[in-house]
Amino acid sequence: MDWVSDDSADSEAAGPGHIRLLDQTALPTAEKVLEIRTVDDLVDAISRLAVRGAPALGVAGALGVALAAYSLPADDVPAAAQKVRDARPTAVNLAWAVDQAVAALPQGPDAVLALARQIRDDDIASSQAIARRGADELYTTLGPDAQRDGLGLMTICNTGSLAAVERGTALAVIEEVLHDGHLQRAYPLETRPLLQGSRLTAWELQQMGAPFDLLVDSAAASTMRRGIVDAVLTGADRIAANGDTANKIGTLALAIAAKYAGIPFYIVAPESTIDVQTATGEDIEIEDRGSAEVTAIQGVQTAPQSTTALNPAFDVTPAELITGIITDRRVIHPAAGERPDDALESPNHRGEPAEAAEAVHEGAKT
Amino acid sequence: MDWVSDDSADSEAAGPGHIRLLDQTALPTAEKVLEIRTVDDLVDAISRLAVRGAPALGVAGALGVALAAYSLPADDVPAAAQKVRDARPTAVNLAWAVDQAVAALPQGPDAVLALARQIRDDDIASSQAIARRGADELYTTLGPDAQRDGLGLMTICNTGSLAAVERGTALAVIEEVLHDGHLQRAYPLETRPLLQGSRLTAWELQQMGAPFDLLVDSAAASTMRRGIVDAVLTGADRIAANGDTANKIGTLALAIAAKYAGIPFYIVAPESTIDVQTATGEDIEIEDRGSAEVTAIQGVQTAPQSTTALNPAFDVTPAELITGIITDRRVIHPAAGERPDDALESPNHRGEPAEAAEAVHEGAKT
Repeated sequence: MDWVSDDSADSEAAGPGHIRLLDQTALPTAEKVLEIRTVDDLVDAISRLAVRGAPALGVAGALGVALAAYSLPADDVPAAAQKVRDARPTAVNLAWAVDQAVAALPQGPDAVLALARQIRDDDIASSQAIARRGADELYTTLGPDAQRDGLGLMTICNTGSLAAVERGTALAVIEEVLHDGHLQRAYPLETRPLLQGSRLTAWELQQMGAPFDLLVDSAAASTMRRGIVDAVLTGADRIAANGDTANKIGTLALAIAAKYAGIPFYIVAPESTIDVQTATGEDIEIEDRGSAEVTAIQGVQTAPQSTTALNPAFDVTPAELITGIITDRRVIHPAAGERPDDALESPNHRGEPAEAAEAVHEGAKT
Repeated sequence: MDWVSDDSADSEAAGPGHIRLLDQTALPTAEKVLEIRTVDDLVDAISRLAVRGAPALGVAGALGVALAAYSLPADDVPAAAQKVRDARPTAVNLAWAVDQAVAALPQGPDAVLALARQIRDDDIASSQAIARRGADELYTTLGPDAQRDGLGLMTICNTGSLAAVERGTALAVIEEVLHDGHLQRAYPLETRPLLQGSRLTAWELQQMGAPFDLLVDSAAASTMRRGIVDAVLTGADRIAANGDTANKIGTLALAIAAKYAGIPFYIVAPESTIDVQTATGEDIEIEDRGSAEVTAIQGVQTAPQSTTALNPAFDVTPAELITGIITDRRVIHPAAGERPDDALESPNHRGEPAEAAEAVHEGAKT
């Protein structure tokens, strides 16, 4: 996702222009680039999940305010910004980034664009830090023999550049191991019901040239027992003060199976995903997304008419099953008794709105 | 599946006629009944999985020999029987039942039809015994309070009447609990990649009037932790002498999650599924069915072109995770140290071809 200036081919040039982004709904069968020239087009793209993932939504929201500032009469900009902000009501990064951009409006559209780019750059820097820390943690935990033989790494959902502008979280660690020359093979899970693993993560792994085999979600446990998986890495939607972690449905099953197979299980997320206001996983409410996603797949009916389904979008993995939580700042080891709310040298958690670089880095959400 | 005589409406009448069966490939969107009047039509129905499940295939095979005996010149019947036998080369029940029927040919077509009906009746009797024993085992294990409140029962794949002429194995136990008035709710898993749970089990549960909610496979572990599941019941494809059990991919994940949640986990299968020649699960070879089932769903491409997948059709659950193996004869408790090859009063295992009622009752396979 980037801003394309009308007057310059320089990718960092300011001035009137438009937003360019990859339409995630067309993946993996087509790579369709959207040229967003109006606020309404951006709202549409966000609403239909052409752009998704909390960090990506933050950058898109701020760029949307810049688009409004360049193209609309000044009086119309606040209402346009509000429309962008409301495109997905539960995406906290979107609202936060739009608010930041609106606050910069008095300095003019170039300042809003500069702020949007700063949010993007901070996200990239955070992903880089996470990726490097994660790779080093794996090498330390698994030892030089595993590192030499190459690592087999399993993951679920999509936690890569599509969710986060660049790189992402768990998938960024896998990419870092690949670049280090130590990736034996990646094992992405397809991630029913919405198939982010097969649609998006498999596509990203292909783009980065990583060797991988796709798996149905239910094949994870037996694949771990085959001895070809060295570690499991997932993202997070919210991490409680005690280390209990909410993430994509299926994450709990992976953590339980990893423990049974004797394989380390890692959560990979920016520090801002830690919510010290949430004491334990029991305090996290889990959204049920209704029957339709389960009873049909990509528009094809797969269950009898009137079948009802339980469709929890997330589950909670207890801290005791989590070998490590890898953030842009540190690695916490919950299974060994460490807690995310243990004192940090410079504590910096979500809810402190001045700290842009942190608050925007929420875990990737559908 | 039954035989329809040309001359009588009596469902047990002999004489020339045809085979009637439900086309499983049309479920759940349509209930299409096939009237099979030629051996070629039967071979086609078996090949394209319109009829599937080992016990059902055995009955279909024997009825196919009866069809040949009634409709073809005597000299052509053996070759026709061979075509039926070869329609699915790995289905041991099909080959066994065709051989039994061919051996009865000298007594005439009515005798072949009677034999086919005997195989069917033996299968039904075995399912009845399994269902009753399974329900009683659940009531004993879970206690009167759970029985009074009603049981929440989770299962995977399809192990019901579609696989077994009538009733089946794990799904037969759920049906028995329903008929006893003690089913709170069933939780069938959709069972990727081929969706037997959503396509077939959900349809059977609707037919029997059972309350149920469908789940994606990866939601099983967190649903168990919600406290709404009292037991997990699955079928089996092969049970080793020590109790290790091969079954549909995903079964191992359920057993591990059930142990973590403190919920009993049962294998439900006819005695004939126990293979004492196989010492442990390590001796069971697991078929990989190739990438295409994973990278597309019902004809819709879900992963990028050229994506490879691991697609093990089965996994092996260690005996230590299995609370009980429920058969038509007994309940074995592997997690408590009991073994399937412990002495029986009248041992009766697969490979003793005279024992029709046993050998035909293989676990339901895709």
